[in-house]
Amino acid sequence: MRKIDIFDSTLRDGAQAAGISFSVNDKIKICKYLDNMGIKYIEAGNPGSNPKDQEFFERVKNEVKFYNSSLVAFGSTRRKNVKVEEDNNVLSLINAGTEYVCIFGKAWDFHATKILGVSLEENLLMIEETISYLKNNGKKVIFDAEHFFDGYKHNREYSLEVLKTAEKAGAVSVCLCDTNGGCFPDEVYNIVKDVCANVSIEVGIHTHNDTGMAVANSMMAVEAGASNVQGTFIGVGERTGNANLSTIIANLMLHRGYDVVKPEYLKNLTSTALKISEISNIRLDNHMPYVGANAFTHKAGMHIDGVKKASTSFEHVPPESVGNERKFLMSEVAGRSTLVEKIKKYAPNVEKDSPIATEIIKRVKELEFEGYQFEGADGTFELLVRRALGTYKPFFTLENFKIIEDNASDDDGFNASAMVKLSVNGKTEISAAEGNGPVNALDKALRKALCVFYPSLDDLILDDYKVRVLETGMATASKVRVLIETRDKSTNKKWSTVGVSTDVIEASWIALVDSIEIKLSNE
Amino acid sequence: MRKIDIFDSTLRDGAQAAGISFSVNDKIKICKYLDNMGIKYIEAGNPGSNPKDQEFFERVKNEVKFYNSSLVAFGSTRRKNVKVEEDNNVLSLINAGTEYVCIFGKAWDFHATKILGVSLEENLLMIEETISYLKNNGKKVIFDAEHFFDGYKHNREYSLEVLKTAEKAGAVSVCLCDTNGGCFPDEVYNIVKDVCANVSIEVGIHTHNDTGMAVANSMMAVEAGASNVQGTFIGVGERTGNANLSTIIANLMLHRGYDVVKPEYLKNLTSTALKISEISNIRLDNHMPYVGANAFTHKAGMHIDGVKKASTSFEHVPPESVGNERKFLMSEVAGRSTLVEKIKKYAPNVEKDSPIATEIIKRVKELEFEGYQFEGADGTFELLVRRALGTYKPFFTLENFKIIEDNASDDDGFNASAMVKLSVNGKTEISAAEGNGPVNALDKALRKALCVFYPSLDDLILDDYKVRVLETGMATASKVRVLIETRDKSTNKKWSTVGVSTDVIEASWIALVDSIEIKLSNE
Repeated sequence: MRKIDIFDSTLRDGAQAAGISFSVNDKIKICKYLDNMGIKYIEAGNPGSNPKDQEFFERVKNEVKFYNSSLVAFGSTRRKNVKVEEDNNVLSLINAGTEYVCIFGKAWDFHATKILGVSLEENLLMIEETISYLKNNGKKVIFDAEHFFDGYKHNREYSLEVLKTAEKAGAVSVCLCDTNGGCFPDEVYNIVKDVCANVSIEVGIHTHNDTGMAVANSMMAVEAGASNVQGTFIGVGERTGNANLSTIIANLMLHRGYDVVKPEYLKNLTSTALKISEISNIRLDNHMPYVGANAFTHKAGMHIDGVKKASTSFEHVPPESVGNERKFLMSEVAGRSTLVEKIKKYAPNVEKDSPIATEIIKRVKELEFEGYQFEGADGTFELLVRRALGTYKPFFTLENFKIIEDNASDDDGFNASAMVKLSVNGKTEISAAEGNGPVNALDKALRKALCVFYPSLDDLILDDYKVRVLETGMATASKVRVLIETRDKSTNKKWSTVGVSTDVIEASWIALVDSIEIKLSNE
Repeated sequence: MRKIDIFDSTLRDGAQAAGISFSVNDKIKICKYLDNMGIKYIEAGNPGSNPKDQEFFERVKNEVKFYNSSLVAFGSTRRKNVKVEEDNNVLSLINAGTEYVCIFGKAWDFHATKILGVSLEENLLMIEETISYLKNNGKKVIFDAEHFFDGYKHNREYSLEVLKTAEKAGAVSVCLCDTNGGCFPDEVYNIVKDVCANVSIEVGIHTHNDTGMAVANSMMAVEAGASNVQGTFIGVGERTGNANLSTIIANLMLHRGYDVVKPEYLKNLTSTALKISEISNIRLDNHMPYVGANAFTHKAGMHIDGVKKASTSFEHVPPESVGNERKFLMSEVAGRSTLVEKIKKYAPNVEKDSPIATEIIKRVKELEFEGYQFEGADGTFELLVRRALGTYKPFFTLENFKIIEDNASDDDGFNASAMVKLSVNGKTEISAAEGNGPVNALDKALRKALCVFYPSLDDLILDDYKVRVLETGMATASKVRVLIETRDKSTNKKWSTVGVSTDVIEASWIALVDSIEIKLSNE
């Protein structure tokens, strides 16, 4: 069982995808998820080219304790005609304070001379000097050989010379990049085999999906001797994306028997993919291997029969092995053990086959069908369990509310205001507030009225508010899912709640009320 | 240049995907698209199991004239203990009136005995009798060997015996199916090689994407001797989908030099994929190889420079070769030259260092700082350029609007309604609408009023509506960015517009108005 290390570049190469832009907080969360998944390397940014990334490397030192992962800062070889110790990008790699740094350099002769405008010797010198300098400053250096495969096809000798230069200079590994994504598995296999016969340090593979081959090329590189796979967890990246690590991890472990992450971590595969897609504000492809909502969904009647008689008929691995579940589209049968496990967190005595478990599961399935997702909404799930158990009590009754938005004021801008009338134990309170928008106005009016009865609500901080449009093609009439993250500043406890509706105000209201009730019911 | 035939099963296996359901009209349209693309075989349905498919086969005879494609009806071998001439499914294949029929049978010994419940000999007999009978009734028969690869791994001799039986009975080709999608390219290559040494008729490949290998396995099967590739044009199918034919066609032709479809048809690849996704009512994955909206989109400044110097840097094939186009995204990292190139698309005479270019770039940077993102919003960018050039004119004046949302009705639900008053050339129009939420109500009221003046706005379809919360930590007072994708159904042109505000209604309004003005200003 050879050990294969995973190198995730969601935060660096993944951020090159159209529509993706991570805040520093987003990056810190993703680091935690990847660490929990047992990923060996997290390439987290390019401190030399991006001030936001500098801030990230500052903050992450104090805010995240890593159990499995090592952070990697990314940059390039020194620029031409600049001394390595005077190259600001190189210096910022040292200042990032990571154990590992990854630098890229040209491995295609044509690119060194034509794009970079340096001689072939100068290119080797840039690689050698940068790696030595970083090594002498205490860094473990990974060398990304850009355009390696195209370079090899045009000039095998020079591309191998580039790798040997990196090895001689002290790199801990060289990573072979199919930068424009045009390679095929048979070529990759043969070339990686040749490379492994020519260098003694670890060899990695970095692929793009332009011909639909990113995962296959990564697999074949491993078979040929690579021991390090770069990619992004859910395959995001420029153009057609990078190699999808969630697929590769499962392929390597379940189909080829490699030692990749601790076996018990494999169950986190689906939830990690979901959480990363949520933070990236992209919808996880339903058809994604292993982790997609439909990866184990059977529609044809014949296939459902087949799976029931022998799951291997239409399932290459058991869905539970990657934390996903089997679904039959035409029946309500679904894997319940995962759900029962979640229920037990709030109600330890609930048995798997009890009527109460059945009722809760039925309700969860109904809500999921409506567009709810409980993966990132522990608060709403807790309330759902409490409601089923009869331990839930409402803390207030909404009498009515009204939101008005118009452009009546002088500046022709938009003005939102809300009125809320509610009662607690027969006592009525009415309040009004203006806001930065209709949801904010409603939020403020609601909390103003409730604080009269429950002063501790002053401790609530809404840390995050996310809106996600569910179906496309319905435009402004689409369903939206609102996710709210709340923190209690007196205890620093956090919880998340979710609401779904075609109306963004109603969806926000549902999540908001749940968030408040979690606070009150845990006092 | 070996000839490889493409076998599209969008209408049969593709219809097994969750959420896909074709009407007879849909199927007829897709047949025309596939014929225009030069696809050799169109597997169009299972007349024995589906009455809608029977109707389709009736109608298609009169309604479509095929120039390139042959229709295929799909079914299975006769049932056990039923005479072939009395098996209704087999008879319906004859009645479908197609030149080709495709039938599947078991190629895994375990599946014959355990799932089907017949002896290994009976299984062979079912295959032989069905093929002979169909052949004697004038059909060309393609035999799909279900579970072939798993069968081969468990019992090579029997799986090959199945293929030889089909050959002897008169099949024109045998197709090897990786039914549960668990195979890898190296295995597929070796097994197909062995099969080609053992049968004399054409060999096909049919793969599923459960391990992300569907395209790679198809490619390797061709390299090993297969001359027929089954899949679905945009990869739809049960679970993780079938092999994506749009990727495979381009891979085979552009990277491996096979003769697949007429070279001039390759330019239809992107538009065919778009039209099929449209009819299937799914959004084409932006990251899909060759045909996705972002397949040739570059974001990183360095990559943009590289592509300009030598397109092979980050493009494996020219985007035009498959009817797609190169895009440069504008992000914080994009330099002046990228921006100027985008400006020139709308104003070809603007010079790089002109005051007007400087003004536009300054405005872009200001808006980006406010949270705008132009990388997915060509429409808003176009209007920005027009405003700077002075070629922009507003098409209406908003007098005022009011949105009211409350829970005053009986059902305690949320009700949203909007009133809009606007004027065009001094003529005033006021309208009102209810909606699924405040934005939808505003959208409807606005378009209702404008259609009085501009009836062509009826052709606008809002394809997508996305909401993204920008900073976290401000909760419901956070800024949001709204992105709207619009399509003109009379021309099929598409554009995207963007609005940013702390108020989701205002942000939506900005994007909505831009979307309408793009339509009107290009008429």
